[in-house]
Amino acid sequence: MAPSSSDTSSEIPPRSAPRRRSRSGGGAARRAERTAVSFETAKYIERNVPVYEILDEAALQVIEANAETVLEEIGVDFPENPKALERWAAAGAKIDGHRVRIPKGLARELCKTAPSSFTQHARNPERSVVIGGDNLVCAPVYGPPFVRDLDGGRRYATMADFEKFVKLGYMSKWLHHSGGTVCEPTDVAVNKRHLDMLLAHMVYSDKPFMGSVTAPSRAQDSVDMCSILFGEEFVQQNTVMTSLININSPLTFDDIMMGAMEVYAENNQACIVSPFIVGGAMAPVSVAGTLTQVLAEVLAGIAYNQLCRPGAPVIFGAFVTSIDMGSGAPTFGTPEASQILYGAGQLARRMGLPFRSGGGLCGSKLPDAQAAYETAHTHNAAMLGGVNFMLHSCGWLEGGLVSSFEKFVMDADQLGVLHKFAKGVAMDENGQGMDALNEVGPGGHYLGAAHTQANYQDAFWRTELLDYKPFETWQEDGERDTQMLAALRVKSQLEAYKQPPLDPMIETKLRAFVTEKKASMPDALE
Amino acid sequence: MAPSSSDTSSEIPPRSAPRRRSRSGGGAARRAERTAVSFETAKYIERNVPVYEILDEAALQVIEANAETVLEEIGVDFPENPKALERWAAAGAKIDGHRVRIPKGLARELCKTAPSSFTQHARNPERSVVIGGDNLVCAPVYGPPFVRDLDGGRRYATMADFEKFVKLGYMSKWLHHSGGTVCEPTDVAVNKRHLDMLLAHMVYSDKPFMGSVTAPSRAQDSVDMCSILFGEEFVQQNTVMTSLININSPLTFDDIMMGAMEVYAENNQACIVSPFIVGGAMAPVSVAGTLTQVLAEVLAGIAYNQLCRPGAPVIFGAFVTSIDMGSGAPTFGTPEASQILYGAGQLARRMGLPFRSGGGLCGSKLPDAQAAYETAHTHNAAMLGGVNFMLHSCGWLEGGLVSSFEKFVMDADQLGVLHKFAKGVAMDENGQGMDALNEVGPGGHYLGAAHTQANYQDAFWRTELLDYKPFETWQEDGERDTQMLAALRVKSQLEAYKQPPLDPMIETKLRAFVTEKKASMPDALE
Repeated sequence: MAPSSSDTSSEIPPRSAPRRRSRSGGGAARRAERTAVSFETAKYIERNVPVYEILDEAALQVIEANAETVLEEIGVDFPENPKALERWAAAGAKIDGHRVRIPKGLARELCKTAPSSFTQHARNPERSVVIGGDNLVCAPVYGPPFVRDLDGGRRYATMADFEKFVKLGYMSKWLHHSGGTVCEPTDVAVNKRHLDMLLAHMVYSDKPFMGSVTAPSRAQDSVDMCSILFGEEFVQQNTVMTSLININSPLTFDDIMMGAMEVYAENNQACIVSPFIVGGAMAPVSVAGTLTQVLAEVLAGIAYNQLCRPGAPVIFGAFVTSIDMGSGAPTFGTPEASQILYGAGQLARRMGLPFRSGGGLCGSKLPDAQAAYETAHTHNAAMLGGVNFMLHSCGWLEGGLVSSFEKFVMDADQLGVLHKFAKGVAMDENGQGMDALNEVGPGGHYLGAAHTQANYQDAFWRTELLDYKPFETWQEDGERDTQMLAALRVKSQLEAYKQPPLDPMIETKLRAFVTEKKASMPDALE
Repeated sequence: MAPSSSDTSSEIPPRSAPRRRSRSGGGAARRAERTAVSFETAKYIERNVPVYEILDEAALQVIEANAETVLEEIGVDFPENPKALERWAAAGAKIDGHRVRIPKGLARELCKTAPSSFTQHARNPERSVVIGGDNLVCAPVYGPPFVRDLDGGRRYATMADFEKFVKLGYMSKWLHHSGGTVCEPTDVAVNKRHLDMLLAHMVYSDKPFMGSVTAPSRAQDSVDMCSILFGEEFVQQNTVMTSLININSPLTFDDIMMGAMEVYAENNQACIVSPFIVGGAMAPVSVAGTLTQVLAEVLAGIAYNQLCRPGAPVIFGAFVTSIDMGSGAPTFGTPEASQILYGAGQLARRMGLPFRSGGGLCGSKLPDAQAAYETAHTHNAAMLGGVNFMLHSCGWLEGGLVSSFEKFVMDADQLGVLHKFAKGVAMDENGQGMDALNEVGPGGHYLGAAHTQANYQDAFWRTELLDYKPFETWQEDGERDTQMLAALRVKSQLEAYKQPPLDPMIETKLRAFVTEKKASMPDALE
């Protein structure tokens, strides 16, 4: 493990908040702080509105009973992972090859040690997030190998693109989380790119971020880099990463993802345990059948997480799309996907666990109307369905093959809609507005009323992107559509970007860690 | 009143269904039927999912009490309408000039005679709709003076455009209602265009439609034309039109709209009594204040409707947008608009009345991503908020100034999403899919499973418009965005259009009525 800053400093950060910067930075750290511009980020969403529940009690009980039957009678596979099989055997499961059959009730019992919510610390304590409860934390797109913008079209993603997305995320008022693989930087060797990606999140943003999951050693690298950034002791005592552990649906837990999860759990770092399902291909073609499989998989995955370290923070994940049965293409923003999201949210809440689902999901090739219809369906379902952590909340295009610069800022602006909706309806005297009704009366006009003047600034959500201009002005401006407006915003945001303050000593250590690690191994393709 | 077909025929249609065609058509009617193609229209949506309720009981009671206070203490105006003032006085309201102050509880009591749901008959009985309860009936855009399409850009609407929209509505599988002023045909005199519009709905579609409200005499013309189409007695005994009566918010009921409503109520035809509110200008800037005004206005309007004819079918309307406080532009698909829709739906259900709100509302100038985000927000709120009649559900653009051909087919396709979502989650043995889980097991693939094969055709909603193609195919096809795909669909739908069968004798009588009426008066500008 690399030396962390706390090794060279007597300052021990308090358990409840990370150290903002070590003393070792001295004057340079203070200069960095003075010259840096802090861009406003809204606090994570705290819902003051009810959730939507699509399933009744009877339906939920059927699905829960069926999931237990699946675990006991069909079982799940943990291939190439003898340690996992040992843990399961010790816990009381029946092992047959790499098949694990879990007696009814056991997995749910094991899940009970997982916390119902947890704080993920950011290096800027103001941007730490609490994941769970009534909260909704929004993180950007994850995983696409391609990027697209209006000028350059569709092309393989590079590390330069990655850094731009991190900067755009940092600049986005409604985005609470810097995410993880905002695009896959294909110009860096597969076995090294996680180092550059983590460095970019740590240096170019001060929002919370995700760790690498593509190999257990890369999860360990993520923990080690966090130990430099936050201090080793702070990392051991607090959660500073939330990482995405996909289940290989149906019912299979591959050794690489499980290996990464073991590293994170043992270091008290959060994992999203998430079935990744194209409905009809990787789960039954019916909504209830898919929910049954989702629940069985999450029960097994989180139970295993808790076997690795009871109490480790974990999220009930559900990434489920539908499929176009004509072409076999995965489809997004569909009614079945919304139904599954709502149902999975109910199942997660009944387990008392934070819930991950939703996003700005769409299948369209362009940031056009199709992309927006599909995205808005998913955004709405995530808001009303009680999602606590929304990965892919902005920038996702073409079924996750493409990170779109324009769609990133378009969706990020839309997240403001969710913020405002979640505030709910104010019912205090000011909210009731009876003074205004009395003042204006039949046939009057409210714009000049005292109540309007007192409230107009916060009364309505305001976009920073969409067009509300009079037709003639819009026409004179060149009849720009949303994509063109977004392209302008991408440029202006990147021009306005300023790096958040970071102790230069820490940055130097992080860069040295990355350089040494990269030099220590040959390039590899996986 | 013009002679209706029932005057010349001994055939009296049954009360429960309109006459499909009169015997007088003979061979021509049968030929028309044989050569006509019937295009599939889905039955109106019957929700098998819960509604979303944003307000708790305490909030609802506060709003209801405040609305009663508004009616009693501030009152409402019925200008230029002595008959209305007489009716209100007789019912127990206090009259002061044209101000009507309604004692607490009176309006709500008067509303109790209104039915909780009603059937609006179409000339094709298979397309009659039941408005109320768990149902959602979708009708197209209403009112824009402009049209837009990809080829011709934005221009004043003509009667030729109007007929195209009626044809597109007839061809739309997910649209249940032909609507009313799908665009405002500016090439026909204002005092005559309602005749051409009604004729188009009656002849080019067999779906239910709306009557004219721009003058009491035009409402009467609408009733008279329906008497030709359905038979006079059938019209007197059944509801064959649902017409839009806007309240002149705040709290004003103008004599023209009220005059039209009086005609419809006296003829047992349905009215949507609908505040038309740009929030912050025509109602308090707060959500609860706006809901209070909406409720007060609807209580007064529907009470007056029931004073005209107790038991007349009526809908609780709420058309409320927000405003951009910077420019004063009305804004659509915003979080405040959704909150108001959800709250108004609760208030309507507590009155036991059908509810109208929502639509494909947007402020964008083009059918682009902004249009789709905003539309999808409103569609989702309408579905979950319990809307029973969704006017503007397709085709609305630029804050209602423009009827867009492309957006019409885009939104109409999206209504399929609502249909599928509303079906809810099947929990029978087939829905549970345990056979599939058993058959496939860990690591398997569901596409070939028996359960998948048995269900794949209905399992997932399928678009008839959006792009699900592989990237390379999409690229070879010319990288078309949603607007371009929609333009192609508009063309193909209009090419495939075939007129639904109609007794030629009825069509002749309708055309004669229109010709005579138009000849009987000079052109007028209002």
